[in-house]
Amino acid sequence: MPIKKATVFITGIAGFAGSYLAEELLATGYRVVGAVHPKESTANIAGLRGEVDIVRLDIQNPSRCRQVLLKAKPDYVCHLAAIASVWRSFEMERTVYRVNFEGTLNMLEATLETDRLRRFLFVSSADCYGVFTPRNKTLTEEQPLNPVSPYALSKAVAEQACRYYAQHYRLPIVTARPFAHSGPRQSADFVIPSFTRQIATIEAGRSHPVMAVGNLTAKRDLSDVRDIVRGYRLLIEKGRPGRVYQLCSGRAVTIQTVLNSLLRLSSRNIKVRVDRSRLRKIDIPIQRGDNSRAVQELGYHARYKLRTTLKDTLDFWRKKTNS
Amino acid sequence: MPIKKATVFITGIAGFAGSYLAEELLATGYRVVGAVHPKESTANIAGLRGEVDIVRLDIQNPSRCRQVLLKAKPDYVCHLAAIASVWRSFEMERTVYRVNFEGTLNMLEATLETDRLRRFLFVSSADCYGVFTPRNKTLTEEQPLNPVSPYALSKAVAEQACRYYAQHYRLPIVTARPFAHSGPRQSADFVIPSFTRQIATIEAGRSHPVMAVGNLTAKRDLSDVRDIVRGYRLLIEKGRPGRVYQLCSGRAVTIQTVLNSLLRLSSRNIKVRVDRSRLRKIDIPIQRGDNSRAVQELGYHARYKLRTTLKDTLDFWRKKTNS
Repeated sequence: MPIKKATVFITGIAGFAGSYLAEELLATGYRVVGAVHPKESTANIAGLRGEVDIVRLDIQNPSRCRQVLLKAKPDYVCHLAAIASVWRSFEMERTVYRVNFEGTLNMLEATLETDRLRRFLFVSSADCYGVFTPRNKTLTEEQPLNPVSPYALSKAVAEQACRYYAQHYRLPIVTARPFAHSGPRQSADFVIPSFTRQIATIEAGRSHPVMAVGNLTAKRDLSDVRDIVRGYRLLIEKGRPGRVYQLCSGRAVTIQTVLNSLLRLSSRNIKVRVDRSRLRKIDIPIQRGDNSRAVQELGYHARYKLRTTLKDTLDFWRKKTNS
Repeated sequence: MPIKKATVFITGIAGFAGSYLAEELLATGYRVVGAVHPKESTANIAGLRGEVDIVRLDIQNPSRCRQVLLKAKPDYVCHLAAIASVWRSFEMERTVYRVNFEGTLNMLEATLETDRLRRFLFVSSADCYGVFTPRNKTLTEEQPLNPVSPYALSKAVAEQACRYYAQHYRLPIVTARPFAHSGPRQSADFVIPSFTRQIATIEAGRSHPVMAVGNLTAKRDLSDVRDIVRGYRLLIEKGRPGRVYQLCSGRAVTIQTVLNSLLRLSSRNIKVRVDRSRLRKIDIPIQRGDNSRAVQELGYHARYKLRTTLKDTLDFWRKKTNS
């Protein structure tokens, strides 16, 4: 741990992964400055009051990005701010491109003007791979990108921008391609919080004991958000500039398996009903990643078992439902 | 040739390649509707008055794109409108992304609402390949993109958008990656018009017999614009949806060779001076493409020799200088 703490600037610090990344970095001795959108809630980082410096920033505003970074003088930038919902991205495509692509350009440009920058972490997504053949392929970082949603397209083009800035301006950019990850605080737009929230509501007696679910056959490579953000920290510490790193568990489980595990965590007898409106939403049948690069170059490995992630998320929603 | 002529909608019709594409399509029996930016000169298509329908369109305006396409009811869309100068793109990055990337999104979106569309041609650029190793590699369509200018980045991300629309919306998109091409009417921002304009000015006695040149060692795969636009026509007629096609000669010549050929076309004794301000501008040492796919699938081949391209371009500037 350095005597003078190194400063990490996190965009999207009040988001799901952002809030965990802040905790991870504080716990390992960094000074943290975080940017929050002017209209965004800071509920996720309420517990960090006094420990992190918060600035309000809309990354769509280039001059404000510059101003904020010049003041923060970060050693590291972790750019997490994005519109992160695949489903919502279909309804707000342009905003998704402006925030996720142009917002990234704004952060890259602003970073060019800072001194002593050691790493710029760009958080992309395994969704960039889209559909591929064979369907049960284990994905590596070399897999061509083939986005099938505005969200994934916005991340793929932002990755392209990062490659350009790494190459042309020699910015020490590392790109993370996290696979699905979950945990407490995640928005109920995502599948595990959606399931756990429904269970908690049922347990609290606030709804009938019937859960609405979507496609249960899709397979996902699931990690705990607390493992993924440790990966982000390892990336700013050890990631090779210009490189892309997958962060994942290396295993794929069906959503059905996730659901069964969750139902076992509840003492209530809960029925399951397939909700057709949720079906079209998943169009990538299976995602499984190879984490060898992260394991070998960063020493990355998962500490949380899926069961723990599910239990902690369920407990989070139980608490939230009862409060 | 069909009894009822098929309609081609060309964005950027008043641009360099756009004006030649219009001529190519008219000569082969198509009806042509072309879009010109509200502030753009129509000098390049002055000779086509009465033969093409012209609409004013800023492709940055999504609702106007929709309106114009719904009215034109095209069978084919050829999307050429772009900010095409690599050098200028460094000074106007954001505008380049808005026009070349978001403008392409606007045209793709607008096209989704048309009926009976047979092809959407997106004109990308061999500049997307950027720098690569080994430097003397003959490029194929499989070469990963590695843009080194805002212009090239904007084209690479627009290609990504095209792949997404082809895959997700089943739009019959074909993508052209033309290598360098020249001919009469090209802007003097480009090397051959820059050289030929200087020679014409010298021949007219309007400047000292000294030419300013940049990097003469760079090698480029040069084609005549009239060959390239024939490739565009073949692409809308025969290109396989979802595919990328390189259009090129398959040979690379140094800019020095081009200069020598041009100097031989003039009877004046002209000196050459290297202008340092022009040097930084070329950062891709060599570009040579493999045109097998276009040759095999489209029957593409070049009809114009480099000498003809150079002579015609020089004659164009001689005429322009004397008028």
